[in-house]
Amino acid sequence: MKRRVGQYLIDQISVYGVDKIFGVPGDFNLAFLDDIVSHDKVEWVGNTNELNGSYAADGYARIKGLGALVTTFGVGELSAVNGIAGSYAERVPVVAITGAPTTVVEQAEKYIHHSLGEGRFNDYRKMFEPITCGQVYLTKENAAVEIPRIIAKAVRFKRPVHIHMPIDVAMAEIEVEEAEVKPLIVQDVSGYIEKVAARLKQSERPVLLVGHEINSFHLHKELEAFVNKTHIPVAQLSLGKGAFNEENPHYIGIYDGKFATKTVNEYVEGSDCIINLGAKLTDSATGGFTYTFDLKDVIFMNDNEFRMNNTYDSDVSLRELLNGLSAIDYDNKSDFPEFSREGTADYQLNDKPLTQENYFKLMAAFLEKDDILLAEQGTSFFGAYDLPLYAGNTFIGQPLWGSIGYTLPSLLGTQMADVNRRNVLLIGDGSFQLTVQEMSTMIRHQLKPVILLINNDGYTVERLIHGEKEVYNDIQMWDYTALPAVFGGKDHVMTQKAATANELKKAMDVINDHQDKMHFVEVVMDVMDAPVKLEQISQAFASQNK
Amino acid sequence: MKRRVGQYLIDQISVYGVDKIFGVPGDFNLAFLDDIVSHDKVEWVGNTNELNGSYAADGYARIKGLGALVTTFGVGELSAVNGIAGSYAERVPVVAITGAPTTVVEQAEKYIHHSLGEGRFNDYRKMFEPITCGQVYLTKENAAVEIPRIIAKAVRFKRPVHIHMPIDVAMAEIEVEEAEVKPLIVQDVSGYIEKVAARLKQSERPVLLVGHEINSFHLHKELEAFVNKTHIPVAQLSLGKGAFNEENPHYIGIYDGKFATKTVNEYVEGSDCIINLGAKLTDSATGGFTYTFDLKDVIFMNDNEFRMNNTYDSDVSLRELLNGLSAIDYDNKSDFPEFSREGTADYQLNDKPLTQENYFKLMAAFLEKDDILLAEQGTSFFGAYDLPLYAGNTFIGQPLWGSIGYTLPSLLGTQMADVNRRNVLLIGDGSFQLTVQEMSTMIRHQLKPVILLINNDGYTVERLIHGEKEVYNDIQMWDYTALPAVFGGKDHVMTQKAATANELKKAMDVINDHQDKMHFVEVVMDVMDAPVKLEQISQAFASQNK
Repeated sequence: MKRRVGQYLIDQISVYGVDKIFGVPGDFNLAFLDDIVSHDKVEWVGNTNELNGSYAADGYARIKGLGALVTTFGVGELSAVNGIAGSYAERVPVVAITGAPTTVVEQAEKYIHHSLGEGRFNDYRKMFEPITCGQVYLTKENAAVEIPRIIAKAVRFKRPVHIHMPIDVAMAEIEVEEAEVKPLIVQDVSGYIEKVAARLKQSERPVLLVGHEINSFHLHKELEAFVNKTHIPVAQLSLGKGAFNEENPHYIGIYDGKFATKTVNEYVEGSDCIINLGAKLTDSATGGFTYTFDLKDVIFMNDNEFRMNNTYDSDVSLRELLNGLSAIDYDNKSDFPEFSREGTADYQLNDKPLTQENYFKLMAAFLEKDDILLAEQGTSFFGAYDLPLYAGNTFIGQPLWGSIGYTLPSLLGTQMADVNRRNVLLIGDGSFQLTVQEMSTMIRHQLKPVILLINNDGYTVERLIHGEKEVYNDIQMWDYTALPAVFGGKDHVMTQKAATANELKKAMDVINDHQDKMHFVEVVMDVMDAPVKLEQISQAFASQNK
Repeated sequence: MKRRVGQYLIDQISVYGVDKIFGVPGDFNLAFLDDIVSHDKVEWVGNTNELNGSYAADGYARIKGLGALVTTFGVGELSAVNGIAGSYAERVPVVAITGAPTTVVEQAEKYIHHSLGEGRFNDYRKMFEPITCGQVYLTKENAAVEIPRIIAKAVRFKRPVHIHMPIDVAMAEIEVEEAEVKPLIVQDVSGYIEKVAARLKQSERPVLLVGHEINSFHLHKELEAFVNKTHIPVAQLSLGKGAFNEENPHYIGIYDGKFATKTVNEYVEGSDCIINLGAKLTDSATGGFTYTFDLKDVIFMNDNEFRMNNTYDSDVSLRELLNGLSAIDYDNKSDFPEFSREGTADYQLNDKPLTQENYFKLMAAFLEKDDILLAEQGTSFFGAYDLPLYAGNTFIGQPLWGSIGYTLPSLLGTQMADVNRRNVLLIGDGSFQLTVQEMSTMIRHQLKPVILLINNDGYTVERLIHGEKEVYNDIQMWDYTALPAVFGGKDHVMTQKAATANELKKAMDVINDHQDKMHFVEVVMDVMDAPVKLEQISQAFASQNK
């Protein structure tokens, strides 16, 4: 059938379930935006800037399995590179589409706006190479083949791809087949699985360390089925919290090196068979590399990484590895201990200044069974990653990439991916200021997330690392609760302020009583108060920088 | 003498007159920020995000001749690339410094936060190669040589440079000479000048087309002295407005291809010797390439570009070319016409809805002799570039790079570069939303610029190009005048709103009566009203995208 290249690109994205496309208009993408607006399967969501758009597409992709962003040439796409790099690091598939000058303009090497004024048109595309798993320059001739190929690549590797689309190419009509989900190539990993099975058979005390790739590949059910069959205990990294059902009796807790609870630390570090499954032992996830085991003894089963003793393969898929694992005949020799989930009811209600510790206890009680919880790097993430989750929760943070300001626009994406789930964002004031304007887009679309903003007067996470009282860790004090009205949310957003546990509890009750509203709560806490985990990791980071 | 590498870097930046360094803290730059804060020649200015920081450093550099930005590894530097690319395109020297992980961490290829999690540390630096004129990876061994070299390169070429500085290197003590301004290498351009002089001698009707490089290289005095001696008429491009004194009798006006006034168009296109001096004939500067002369007949005297007939040299400096030109013995054969500057008093005062045309007439009268005028891409720039300037004005726009949102953070930089000059920003609502939070930094530092925000309900510039009534050109309506108070400026900022000429005139009177305050005026105009020049260029851009 005949489709314009731009239409076919949208067709092919939408067959993976994408129904929102994020971005910012610019004259080199406007004609393509017409095809988005008129497409029956997708809706256009305009962001307030491109970095925010890239974060929103990332958040959306974490829930839906794929996201898409449209920017304009140069000024637009380059504003988005930080967000796209974060998607690359944390394995989130985002299709980054640049509307570009026409082929004729490029071939004539014209000095046009948004170019560097030197007649070159390749520079920006090249800048995407290190931060995407595939790049394509669309032409009328290659579009029918390259569009499905590049999108399948993003889906296969759970990483962003970059599409450079001259606007005349977007408008060109081509002959295409109906868009469809490309079947993934199934690799033979049986040789590796046999090795793992043999090792497991000899093991008295195996443990699974699971992480973010389980979330990226949406392998939760497969993982839990394997654990329920084998009863192998599971520890999660904070980079990938949500990978395993914390209500499962075989879940033992978060492993973060020497900062982990004694039980978890001793169990993991005393294991005779650590299987690192879809996880990455980064500094922030391991208390600054404080694990005591030898990496050579660990079995790494990741996407693009099977590593065991002297065997290494970078051409494997996590899905196939886990499928292979699930099929093994494994005889569980020992009775592994069953751990029980921590209670959540021990918060204190009083009129004293609210502490971080009490804040997170209140949060544990506030959390509902199907919530999506987003936690910004800083006090929010390092407090939240120890919160006990329900099976139905989704947890979103960005501890590897760690770009402050990420979660607010990401919330736009996660909430738009599923308006029926409650989204709760925990964020601090320093981070909030970077990307604040995206709250406007949430109001514009009448979304109903819950935002809890910690106002503790500056970059507390940085103060803990270095320069506690230095001016560079101060920020301007804002009247935060006035912002929703500025952004047009006077009637749609309920704003509250809480400085004590009693006030916060009351605010939470108001939220629960008014589920038809968006909520914004400013939570005031002391400038140097922080979750214990943040204090610990900050010291580790400070040492790492010597 | 002994200095830490970081201290020496600041020393060397400050000898060029830089007294403010912009940026955002991050754990890989905190120890370096200590050296900035304690340095006796510079002040740290924390931005609300890195893109805004890069724009602020650009604005500062346009006034002071050099700017500096400090970000952290990955998340920070990648958020700034769009701003740095703009500095590259428009020839603004900004030193972009990345505080990076220690040499030890890098050599161990650790999976640390802000990395892509794959043990590589070179990716981001490489992304800066196409958008900077020099890059350096500082080590303890090379710092004493490389720091002065790379900064001199930024100053010489008026383009950004990138410095990757591991935080352990920043802290390392080295032996250095006292920082000093490096003398520029003087090139011999006499052969080229002789050719130009010979051509000029045969010319009956020469004209100078001047542009942005005159501003970048601060060659205003040299240019005017040459014109006063030779009486060669001067036309400016909008890309570089302010390059020539518009009060000079030899100034004939803005040349923008077929959109120029008849007098200017006919004079330039009828010239038998067009000398393009520090200017670039881009699409937005030439009404979409609508000049009728043949580029082969033009003499190009730019930085890194001398081009005349078959002679081409990319290794020349604009300063030397202009110095050479100034020294020629030129006998002005004809009496060139003297043009007189347009009047500014023909605005209309009434209570009808304010029009763009009347707005810019009022603006012409409002402008004072030493103002710095910033005009955002959109209705603001395309209206403002026809405003008649005084000799003492500085005009700042970004018509080649054209990144919307640029001017608000740039204003922070220009105002901090000289707090004694009044800074006036003209900006539209669509652009304003991208970078709004930097207003907070202006309030934090109690700066006193004048901001005129056009509220015309969306991306009017895009509507004129394509999709007049399409949803992608709409934006969320904000309560703009409430923002200064949100950002802590309740007492410092006077806010006003104007929808008629009478209201705007009154607002302007209030501004003039309260020079001890920052001013923010929301100017309401019709959604499809636009300066004539914007309507014309939009049609040209629309055609270019077919």
